[in-house]
Amino acid sequence: MKAYEELEQRFGRSGRLRAVEALVFWDTEVMMPPAVSSVRAEELAALRAVIHELEVDPAVEALIARAEQESLEPWQAANLQEIKRRYQHQRAVPGSLVEKLARACTECSMTWRQARRENDFPRIRPPLQRVVELVREQAQHKAEALGLSPYDALLDEYEPGARAETIAPLFDRLLEVLPQLTAEVIERQDTPPPLDGPFPLEKQRAVGLQVMQAIGFDFDSGRLDVSTHPFCDGAAGDVRITTRYSEANFTESLMATIHETGHALYEQGLPARWHFQPVGHARSMGMHESQSLLVEMQACRSREFLRWLAPILRRTFGGSATAWSTDNLYRHYRRVERGLIRVDADELTYPAHVILRFRLERALVAGELSVADLPSAWNEGMQQLVGITPPDDRDGCLQDIHWMDGTLGYFPTYTLGAMTAAQLYEAALRDVPAIPKTIGLGDFGPLSGWLRDKIHARASSVSSEQLLVDATGKPLDPEIYLANLRRRYLD
Amino acid sequence: MKAYEELEQRFGRSGRLRAVEALVFWDTEVMMPPAVSSVRAEELAALRAVIHELEVDPAVEALIARAEQESLEPWQAANLQEIKRRYQHQRAVPGSLVEKLARACTECSMTWRQARRENDFPRIRPPLQRVVELVREQAQHKAEALGLSPYDALLDEYEPGARAETIAPLFDRLLEVLPQLTAEVIERQDTPPPLDGPFPLEKQRAVGLQVMQAIGFDFDSGRLDVSTHPFCDGAAGDVRITTRYSEANFTESLMATIHETGHALYEQGLPARWHFQPVGHARSMGMHESQSLLVEMQACRSREFLRWLAPILRRTFGGSATAWSTDNLYRHYRRVERGLIRVDADELTYPAHVILRFRLERALVAGELSVADLPSAWNEGMQQLVGITPPDDRDGCLQDIHWMDGTLGYFPTYTLGAMTAAQLYEAALRDVPAIPKTIGLGDFGPLSGWLRDKIHARASSVSSEQLLVDATGKPLDPEIYLANLRRRYLD
Repeated sequence: MKAYEELEQRFGRSGRLRAVEALVFWDTEVMMPPAVSSVRAEELAALRAVIHELEVDPAVEALIARAEQESLEPWQAANLQEIKRRYQHQRAVPGSLVEKLARACTECSMTWRQARRENDFPRIRPPLQRVVELVREQAQHKAEALGLSPYDALLDEYEPGARAETIAPLFDRLLEVLPQLTAEVIERQDTPPPLDGPFPLEKQRAVGLQVMQAIGFDFDSGRLDVSTHPFCDGAAGDVRITTRYSEANFTESLMATIHETGHALYEQGLPARWHFQPVGHARSMGMHESQSLLVEMQACRSREFLRWLAPILRRTFGGSATAWSTDNLYRHYRRVERGLIRVDADELTYPAHVILRFRLERALVAGELSVADLPSAWNEGMQQLVGITPPDDRDGCLQDIHWMDGTLGYFPTYTLGAMTAAQLYEAALRDVPAIPKTIGLGDFGPLSGWLRDKIHARASSVSSEQLLVDATGKPLDPEIYLANLRRRYLD
Repeated sequence: MKAYEELEQRFGRSGRLRAVEALVFWDTEVMMPPAVSSVRAEELAALRAVIHELEVDPAVEALIARAEQESLEPWQAANLQEIKRRYQHQRAVPGSLVEKLARACTECSMTWRQARRENDFPRIRPPLQRVVELVREQAQHKAEALGLSPYDALLDEYEPGARAETIAPLFDRLLEVLPQLTAEVIERQDTPPPLDGPFPLEKQRAVGLQVMQAIGFDFDSGRLDVSTHPFCDGAAGDVRITTRYSEANFTESLMATIHETGHALYEQGLPARWHFQPVGHARSMGMHESQSLLVEMQACRSREFLRWLAPILRRTFGGSATAWSTDNLYRHYRRVERGLIRVDADELTYPAHVILRFRLERALVAGELSVADLPSAWNEGMQQLVGITPPDDRDGCLQDIHWMDGTLGYFPTYTLGAMTAAQLYEAALRDVPAIPKTIGLGDFGPLSGWLRDKIHARASSVSSEQLLVDATGKPLDPEIYLANLRRRYLD
């Protein structure tokens, strides 16, 4: 057997087990009875250990070296690259550190829930310090193995090929324009008439399903359920998204469903032939976010889509024709407001939240910022970038789980995703001018067909940058994103 | 590290993966989107391969030999026994045969669905012949490794320690008494007034949950869902049962829920300390069935329980006081009728269905009966044992999936379970005379407490026979079962 084939067999098995892991994760969030959680953690640990042993076995290194000499088809060669990437990332970090970090993250995340509730930063300080120290160690190991800076070595796992040095100027450019654009939009907008509830959950679910159907979610290969935090958990053609409902408010829940449906289209469009291989996975977290944001922000907050949606909502929930007019929906879904909380932020202020975190986490990894100084650095950054100062840590540096869970280097992917979404959408409109009109008829076929060709079906066969250049003719360009925002928010 | 500890570590890991496998199975039956099935099969195969490799690694044999020299606590010694048992069963069969059999079973089961629908025995004959041939081979391998007859070697996997030579006379004794008892009961009974539907699914579910609560199902460690065939899937304190609902009929659905709740009590009562080890599993399939039948047949078809249930049903579904009287419910739940289908059979005729299958599968494994002769042997047996002849194979030898799926040696456990249930219940009544009265108040605590002590908490730490002798003072005795049936059906 060729070395490459041996690798494909081995990673095919670990890929199947990873699909099982994704399913177990979904069950944990959606179905699991409460008393099972500690047992579940043990089950997941056993599963992960088996996957890890398959993927970082020393035999893999020799197989990679041999396979690099073999003659391979383009997708096989790309798969070999991805196998190597994954191997290098995993192999770089000693098993003992992985274990210590896992334990520290579990402890810190658990403490965080209480510390956040009680607005108690001093309580989270020691476990968070421990996590940050161990992440620095991890970053150091990866940096040496990959020949990158420590921060880039972390970032590279979520956004292969991305480098902080390249991202920073893109983000700086956004900060030159967005604060003023935000002020202008806030100045122009007024308070729209309310969408009066209540909105019964069953009806919200029915609308969500109808919208998912229109967008092109394949219910033969996926499900919609409910969880505390909406997510998309995709594995090998079994794509499960979740949302949450509030009787008092349907707008957020519906957009959460739509957002996750964007993620799901990507997962459902990945090539079945490569489902279980590293090359068959979505390209990066930023590319994934671009797919959800493209569907949510670019397509589904458009006047065309809302014109299609308005009568459905009116029929479903009843109420006045003014409240359910396209225009009023548009005003609700386009509202801009400076706020404290990232996950509640609108499109125009969101990047500032991300850029703040990007700067702080770079400084944390570099050892230039201590955990003790985090609250003040956070609050100063919020004032500088968003224009408001958090009254407390609960709605300040305690709001996100990412760092508590050892995830540093992830935040930039949100804004990279938003920029990528805008750039892809503009290109799609150029290539297929009928897209807005078809969306206005509830037909997403032309849009999703374009996305499938350009992004989904190519999986990880080329780099993010290559995908973007092939689809749009250019690497990531903040001017396209800014023009897109201006067009949509100043129309 | 002691050899025993190494074994515990290894089987602890495979035990955790087996819990994951149980979860994946549940998802497949209850949640999985339809187009995922082939991918799911691959995922399960990968998971099973990993489990298999952990458990039949040649290192295990040497570890067992060394551990047998070590000084062990009683539960550890029992665990070592169970590890050895599992190892011997799995090791006996060559991997190539396991694979061939798995493929043949998949093909045969799939063909069976269509063949049954179309009443087409000739269609199923070749794949079933293939399965039976391979099962014979499997039985031969196991027989040599375990020093048992081929049929016993199969039976021993489901019912450790059981032997056909011991079972056959017990079953023969049942056949001496049950046909006449059946005739007598049918002679005495009359047609009860109907329980008029429809029975809305949501209400059926609510009643089911209330009954589960009363019986003692722990919803913090389990769930109730819906599937095509009701089952209980238990793993390490995460116990999931299913039922199915029909708008036109609630009696079957409710008893299915109750039956599975009996299984669930067993799973939820297993000792947490040993959850992932072989000794921590339920003792046998017969013992498992005894727990479901004890709750369903002995406890929940009693006048006392139905007296508690009747007003709940009347409040839930509405309708006439006569229809919902305790007496009428009792007549519905005690109805006896000779029929063609095992799963629809009542308590008195069920054993004949099982004994027929036991005799036929023994003959199939011994090579004394050919698949070609199965339909005629089946029909003759039905006439002889149940007293009716199937008009076709659909409702004859094509009705069960077991053989199609390579499961031979399993059927006797149903009737062993029924006999065990009766014997345990009679002992429980002797030890705790208040049980019927408390059940009549919807309080199953005294009964389930007794079962937990005598059966559940002991898991696989001793043999089935030992469990029964310790709990009832006697090995399995058909006279107790027959007396129990007479008492309940001729009262």
